[in-house]
Amino acid sequence: MNEQELTHEVTARMATTPDDRIRFLMEALVRHLHSFACEVRLTEAEWLQGIRFLTETGQMCDATRQEFILLSDTLGLSSLVDIINHGNQNPEVTATTVLGPFYVPDSPRRAFGASMVEYEDGGRPAIVGGTVRSASGVPIPGAEIDVWQNAATGFYAVQVPDEQPATNLRGIYSTDHRGRYEIRTVRPVPYPIPADGPVGRSLAVTGRHPWRAAHIHAIVSAPGHVTLTTHIFDSASDYLDGDAVFGVSSALVRDFVPDPTGTLVCEHDFVLDVAGG
Amino acid sequence: MNEQELTHEVTARMATTPDDRIRFLMEALVRHLHSFACEVRLTEAEWLQGIRFLTETGQMCDATRQEFILLSDTLGLSSLVDIINHGNQNPEVTATTVLGPFYVPDSPRRAFGASMVEYEDGGRPAIVGGTVRSASGVPIPGAEIDVWQNAATGFYAVQVPDEQPATNLRGIYSTDHRGRYEIRTVRPVPYPIPADGPVGRSLAVTGRHPWRAAHIHAIVSAPGHVTLTTHIFDSASDYLDGDAVFGVSSALVRDFVPDPTGTLVCEHDFVLDVAGG
Repeated sequence: MNEQELTHEVTARMATTPDDRIRFLMEALVRHLHSFACEVRLTEAEWLQGIRFLTETGQMCDATRQEFILLSDTLGLSSLVDIINHGNQNPEVTATTVLGPFYVPDSPRRAFGASMVEYEDGGRPAIVGGTVRSASGVPIPGAEIDVWQNAATGFYAVQVPDEQPATNLRGIYSTDHRGRYEIRTVRPVPYPIPADGPVGRSLAVTGRHPWRAAHIHAIVSAPGHVTLTTHIFDSASDYLDGDAVFGVSSALVRDFVPDPTGTLVCEHDFVLDVAGG
Repeated sequence: MNEQELTHEVTARMATTPDDRIRFLMEALVRHLHSFACEVRLTEAEWLQGIRFLTETGQMCDATRQEFILLSDTLGLSSLVDIINHGNQNPEVTATTVLGPFYVPDSPRRAFGASMVEYEDGGRPAIVGGTVRSASGVPIPGAEIDVWQNAATGFYAVQVPDEQPATNLRGIYSTDHRGRYEIRTVRPVPYPIPADGPVGRSLAVTGRHPWRAAHIHAIVSAPGHVTLTTHIFDSASDYLDGDAVFGVSSALVRDFVPDPTGTLVCEHDFVLDVAGG
């Protein structure tokens, strides 16, 4: 049996899959996987190294570390899936980005203008605010903004449970009757994605750095609208051009401007698509 | 940024890889991975299901269970790598096959004609013998044959350490001065690959069975020759046409013929390629 015959036999074996979509996915997966191995003439040693890499990647995962999402991020797959699923959206709608590995659900609800800083680490005070609008143009009162970001140390609370309170620098805010939101926080900082595992080694082997540009994450939702997963990037950050996970969209880069008291102010509106629209 | 632009940016990021071969592998991996996601229009839910599947596959692995090799086997990748690396060999040389997940190194050395049965489970007695020859035609005295197979229960010793002695049904034999080897054993039986993990679930979802055709594994080596990893398949076995890991080569199928005492006799020669030839 030659290479083409084997690939044909394997895809043919998938024909028994009852679900049409899964059958299509499996046949395509086999075709592309085999095509990769044939193109590069994969050696047995390389195959075994790949098996070991994937095994270690799985074994690095636990309740607070998702090494396979990191791998997907650093291979640009996460951003690609984002483009595939949202690339054709209304251009007036705010750009989507990857969720990333540090989202924790059930953040505390916080009042308009309240601080989500629960741990002082010398981060520079900042106020992030703006309006949540519908693609139809009108502001949306009562929209929810679930935000999370890192501390001045570079770490998200979930990464350092012994150091930061679990709910530090995350919270769920709501827009007021004008559709405005306001968050008191600190300026986010660039940080390296966790580089002490197999994904970090793969970056080193390919001569890449692990740094992400400074950003705040947000998931914005409102009745009748498509939920938006997005970032706000700091225009003064390093790595906007070389983000390790290919997550930067120029449309999401904003200035953090000092007010007379020295507090940084960042104004950013979120525009949500109308559901089913 | 559209899909093509993102793929280009990710492959361009690999350009910093110092090692030429790794750079080529990484660029090709990204191209094929992105091409798969684009072709199937991978949804976010499917992506997340894939992340979870790979995570579980890694976490299923331990010292005696290699779920990623099983995955590679059931996707035909292991056999494809075998064909890529050995498909162009001298056609007189014995066909190679995958190693499989149950190989254990350092089996006991056993004398010519000795039994490797250390645990009685009602398996039918068999003698497997033949000659190890060089592709140049001459028999090879002192060649080593490292063999392993399953018991009549379907299990390899490594799978059931509480049931079978660790060295049951495996051993290292040597050829005599005529290049002959002879192994006393029991007839191998078809068996399901371990189906209690994510790979087993993937077979179920695709309507596939987990069974392999009955076989004996062998790694045959001799000075001055290319080491051969191969199987001997029982011609009376089920699943020769539908082996779950795409491992059957018709050139490796042999009859197990009863002698006057009822013991099955299987005659099989191994032909090794000359090293550097």
